[in-house]
Amino acid sequence: MYPIITISREFGSGGHSIGEKVAEKLNIPFLDGEIVNKTAIDSGYCKELIEEQGETATMANKWFDVSAASTMYFQSPQDEIFLAQRKVILEAAKQGPCVIVGRCSDYILRRAEIPCINVLIHSDMKHRKARVLERYGEIKDVDVEKRIRKKDKQRRTYYRYYTDQHWGDYSNYDLALDSGTLGEECCIDIICKLAEMRSK
Amino acid sequence: MYPIITISREFGSGGHSIGEKVAEKLNIPFLDGEIVNKTAIDSGYCKELIEEQGETATMANKWFDVSAASTMYFQSPQDEIFLAQRKVILEAAKQGPCVIVGRCSDYILRRAEIPCINVLIHSDMKHRKARVLERYGEIKDVDVEKRIRKKDKQRRTYYRYYTDQHWGDYSNYDLALDSGTLGEECCIDIICKLAEMRSK
Repeated sequence: MYPIITISREFGSGGHSIGEKVAEKLNIPFLDGEIVNKTAIDSGYCKELIEEQGETATMANKWFDVSAASTMYFQSPQDEIFLAQRKVILEAAKQGPCVIVGRCSDYILRRAEIPCINVLIHSDMKHRKARVLERYGEIKDVDVEKRIRKKDKQRRTYYRYYTDQHWGDYSNYDLALDSGTLGEECCIDIICKLAEMRSK
Repeated sequence: MYPIITISREFGSGGHSIGEKVAEKLNIPFLDGEIVNKTAIDSGYCKELIEEQGETATMANKWFDVSAASTMYFQSPQDEIFLAQRKVILEAAKQGPCVIVGRCSDYILRRAEIPCINVLIHSDMKHRKARVLERYGEIKDVDVEKRIRKKDKQRRTYYRYYTDQHWGDYSNYDLALDSGTLGEECCIDIICKLAEMRSK
């Protein structure tokens, strides 16, 4: 039986696409939209909000500014989304092998002592810029590099807040891959090879 | 042709042994003692000093305490060893595929724009303690964990001093592997598979 695989990724590194193709190759579920749908049902919040606040800390979300004081008295919507999402991830993991991208899934499964392979996908700015431009196209008055750095920062802040750990610390991953120097196909092959070794 | 492979490793993670076996499996040179020997000839310092100061900053080596002032006027023995070692590493890399362990080799080759695969081997304290005890045996009055942390710190300080970079930053490695969760054999297989993919 293949292991559960979590994929943490830098924005624009291709981690999402790599995870999708790994799941396809191993013929196991790829959990992304499903997590959003189930979290929406469990929490009562709409899908758009969960997609937006399910793994990023944004300035529009003021809860991060008053977190220390507020969490002593009540749960913020983001806290409720985190908890509902956490439950969905744990339930999904209990169903068997799958690939889960982001959403602090590495931390959530580690804390629950559910065996899995934790993978980090990263890449240098040059490759990430090219990938983002290819995927989303050029947007007028938007600096791609600034957008990438902002997205990374939001994810790091979210991760820090809910795990009290530093995002990207190598000791949290079984495997960390540079998709820029290795290429997407090579990353997919290495993760699948590791999953096959583990399944023996 | 296989690529050059550099291996950075936490103390006790088995990175040295993994590098040795990868070189054996790919039938390419494993550079460790040879670097020490050639650096000794080039620098004039004895092998024991190069082994001790070739990748660790020790308190016995006072140069690190006075580095800011001293380097403005003259080169310390450690600086001379670093420069001689750097030359030996660059010359070795020009000869063709090989495996080089530690000694800032990832940084030295990156700076010289010599293509290579940079690998980081790490592991949790439990596995590293077991490995160090198995390799060196228990030493009276020596706390194994303290010894491991000290050795890591010395290597990190050395790396920081000569590269001005943070040792263990994931963005410096094509591949980072947890030898504790994956096991030595699995790490060897993944590195060899990557070398084979790259050689095509």
